[in-house]
Amino acid sequence: MRPIDRTLAAHLSVATPGDAVRLCGHVHRRRELAAVTFLVVRDRSGLAQVVIRPSDGQEVPPEETPVEVVGVATASSQAPGGVEITSPVITALSDPALTPPVELWRPALAAGLPTLLDHAPVTWRHRAVRARWELAAASLRGFRATLDQAGFTEVHSPKIVESATESGADVFEVDYFGRPAYLAQSPQFYKQQLVGIFERVYEVGPVFRAEPHDTVRHLAEYVSLDVELGFVRDHRDVLRVLRDVVAGMVEGIETYAAGAVERLGLELPVVPEEIPVVHFSQALRLVGATDDEPDLAPEHERALGAWAREHHGSDFLAVEGYPMLKRPFYTHPEPGDERWSNSFDLLFRGLELVTGGQRLHRLGDYETALLQRGQSPAAYAAYLQAFAHGMPPHGGFALGLERWVARVVGAANVREVSLFPRDVHRVSP
Amino acid sequence: MRPIDRTLAAHLSVATPGDAVRLCGHVHRRRELAAVTFLVVRDRSGLAQVVIRPSDGQEVPPEETPVEVVGVATASSQAPGGVEITSPVITALSDPALTPPVELWRPALAAGLPTLLDHAPVTWRHRAVRARWELAAASLRGFRATLDQAGFTEVHSPKIVESATESGADVFEVDYFGRPAYLAQSPQFYKQQLVGIFERVYEVGPVFRAEPHDTVRHLAEYVSLDVELGFVRDHRDVLRVLRDVVAGMVEGIETYAAGAVERLGLELPVVPEEIPVVHFSQALRLVGATDDEPDLAPEHERALGAWAREHHGSDFLAVEGYPMLKRPFYTHPEPGDERWSNSFDLLFRGLELVTGGQRLHRLGDYETALLQRGQSPAAYAAYLQAFAHGMPPHGGFALGLERWVARVVGAANVREVSLFPRDVHRVSP
Repeated sequence: MRPIDRTLAAHLSVATPGDAVRLCGHVHRRRELAAVTFLVVRDRSGLAQVVIRPSDGQEVPPEETPVEVVGVATASSQAPGGVEITSPVITALSDPALTPPVELWRPALAAGLPTLLDHAPVTWRHRAVRARWELAAASLRGFRATLDQAGFTEVHSPKIVESATESGADVFEVDYFGRPAYLAQSPQFYKQQLVGIFERVYEVGPVFRAEPHDTVRHLAEYVSLDVELGFVRDHRDVLRVLRDVVAGMVEGIETYAAGAVERLGLELPVVPEEIPVVHFSQALRLVGATDDEPDLAPEHERALGAWAREHHGSDFLAVEGYPMLKRPFYTHPEPGDERWSNSFDLLFRGLELVTGGQRLHRLGDYETALLQRGQSPAAYAAYLQAFAHGMPPHGGFALGLERWVARVVGAANVREVSLFPRDVHRVSP
Repeated sequence: MRPIDRTLAAHLSVATPGDAVRLCGHVHRRRELAAVTFLVVRDRSGLAQVVIRPSDGQEVPPEETPVEVVGVATASSQAPGGVEITSPVITALSDPALTPPVELWRPALAAGLPTLLDHAPVTWRHRAVRARWELAAASLRGFRATLDQAGFTEVHSPKIVESATESGADVFEVDYFGRPAYLAQSPQFYKQQLVGIFERVYEVGPVFRAEPHDTVRHLAEYVSLDVELGFVRDHRDVLRVLRDVVAGMVEGIETYAAGAVERLGLELPVVPEEIPVVHFSQALRLVGATDDEPDLAPEHERALGAWAREHHGSDFLAVEGYPMLKRPFYTHPEPGDERWSNSFDLLFRGLELVTGGQRLHRLGDYETALLQRGQSPAAYAAYLQAFAHGMPPHGGFALGLERWVARVVGAANVREVSLFPRDVHRVSP
C-alpha cells in the first residue's frame, strides 16, 4: 500500500474529518491526564494535537524525539485549527531524545544568554525564538526582490583578501598557503570595482571584524547586505534606493513571515515614501551639541529618533553630511564645502542601522585622499585600476542583517539574533 | 528645468523619434569616419549608438570613460534596436579613461587567463564575459525560488569555526584573538543541526579549501549552495528535491538571463522529470571497471554521461550507493548492505556536479562511526548535541556555484567564472 502523504500541522485544519492523516515532527509536549494523553507535535509549519486513549495502546516518546503519527483527523474545538488527531499510531523516528536544557514548549525560554548560546542547536528550536530567523530570511527575500526589480546583479566577492586595507585595525589574519592574508572586513572595494562591470550590484555575505570589545552591538562575524550603484548624481540617489530596499524588507516580512510576526507580537515599522533628512550640522543643533562635535553619540541618535517621530511621524531619519574627518578615504566630499561629506547614516528608532554615501570616482581624487592620510596609492593598485579605466559617479550602503533583525524584534543583544555568534570569547558551537 | 530621465540603451528602441533622451554609460567604442563619428555607449542593459557630426562640436572621450549623452532619438535601420541618438551633447563623468589591457568592444577577449584575472575589474566588463555572472545570479534566483516555495528557510552559518573537523586536511587557520580557529570547509555540520530547528534549510555562502593542487577544477574559496531537509525516507527524497532545484536554476536562467544566454550562444540543458539513477556497483559494470574500484575515475564519469545520453536522453545521471569507505563519517549506510551508502553524486554531461545523500540521525550511530574511524566523539560534542536531543532522518546536498556556471557555459577552467579567484598562487586582485 502506498503510504499516506504527509500533512503539515498548519494544514490539518483543512483535513476532512474522518480521513487518515500522517504527521511528522518533534514531540513538542506530552501531557498525561487520568483518562487520556495529549501529544503536541511540532513541525516547520506549526503545532498539531494528538489524543491518545488507553485503548490506542501507544507510547509517547520523550519531548523532542522526532515522530511519525498516523491517525484520524477529528474535529475538536479545543485543538489548534479546530482539528486534532485521534486513534494514532506513533512511530519514533530516532532514539528517545535527551531532556532539553530548557523547556521548549513554554512561552519563553527560561535561561540566560550563555546557556542559550551554548545549546543553540536545541534552544533555537523554540517557536517564538526561531521566528527571528524566519524574519531574517523573509527580509532577505524582500531585499533581493527590490534590487532584482531595479536592475541589480547579485555578486559574490572574495572573503580572503591580500591586505588589510580598509581600516587596518580589527582584521583577522589567515595562514594562506604559508603567507599572511586577511578576512575581508567588508566587500567595499570589490562592490565598487563591480559597478564598472554590472553598474548595479548587491551582495549578501559574511564580513569579519576582529572586534576586541565585548559589547551588545558587535559580532566578530556577521552577515552584511551590501549595495552599490553607478551613475548617481549624489548620495541622495543612494538614499532613495535604500528607502525602497528597507520598504521591501518590511514587505518581505509581512508577506513571508506573518506567522513569525504574530509569534513575536511585533509591530512592524512603516517606511515613509521619502525618508526625512537632516544635515549633520543641523543634527548637532537639534540635539544641543556644540558645532565642533565630530560624530553623533548614542544619546544624540536617540534624541534625533524622538525628533523624527515627533516632527515627521517617522521611525526613520537620515543624517547626511558627516564630517569628512570621520569617514573613510573613499568618501565623496560635499561639493562646495569639503568639511562635510556626501554620506549618510540611516537611524531607525534612534539607532544607527545603515551607513552609506557617494564615493570618489576619479583616480586623481583617490591618490590625493590616500596621500593626505599618509598612505601609499601603490598599496591600493589592484583596487585603483578600476578608477584608472573609467568609473562613473557611484555610491552605496551596507546594512548588517543581525542588526536589522535585532532592531525589528527589539533584541537587547545582537547575539540573540545570530544563530551561532562569534565574539572575542566565543567561537563555538 | 528638471533633468530628462535616464533612458537605458535597451529601452532606446521604444523611444519616440524626435524626443530628447539622456543616456548614461561607458564609451564602448568610437569610430571616426570622414564625415561622421560613431560612439557606442554601453550600459547595464546593452549598447546604444550615437552619431556625431562635425557641426555638433562634440568630442568623444577615450573608450571606457563614463559619459552622459543628451540628444535626439532618431530612427535608423543600422542602429541596435532601430533607434540611434543624433545631435548629442556629450559630458564626460570622470577623467579620460586609460586604455584597457584588452579591447573590450571586440567579440572575444584576446588575452591569456593570467592577464584577464590580473585585470578582472576591467576585463570582466566585456559583455559576453560579464554574462557568466548574470547566469550565476539568475541561477541563484531560481535556486532560492524553488526552495522558498518548498518551505525551506534561508540560513547563514559561521565561517570561522573552532576545529578542522570534517576532513582535517586542506583547512585554513585563522588567528582568532590569539588562538587558532579555522575557516569552514562547508556548512555541513551547521545545516544538519539547523534541520532540528527549521526542518528544511538552505545556505548560499563562501566555503574555503586550502587546496594545494593547482587544477582547473579547484578554487581555494568558492560559493557553495547547500540544502538540507528533515523527515526524508532516504536519499531518494533528497534527490527529488535536487532535481527540482536544478530545474529551477535552469528556469531562472531562462527567465532572468535570456540576454546572457544569447550573448554566450548557449544551449541550456533540459532537466528530466525524473533523473535516471544507477547504483554504484552497476555503474562499475557499465564502464567495464572491476568490482572492487572504490570510486569513479573521470573517464568513468564521462562514459556514464554518454550512457545516460544514449539510454535515457538525459544530460543528468545520478549514481547512488557509493562505497561507505569513500564517504564521510556522517553518511547513512544502505539498509541491508552496509558496504554501500545512501548517498549519490549527480553527473552533468559526464562531470560530477553535486554530492548528496542521507545522513546518520541517531547519536549512537555517530559515536560508532567516529570510533570506527579512530576519532573521539568528544571532539564533536557541539555538533552531536543536536542528535542527543532528537534529530529526524535527514539528508541534503551541496553544489558549487562556479562549477555549475562552468558546466553550463562550457568553461575549461573554473577561474573563468569566478570574479576574483583564489588559489595557491593567487590572492589578488
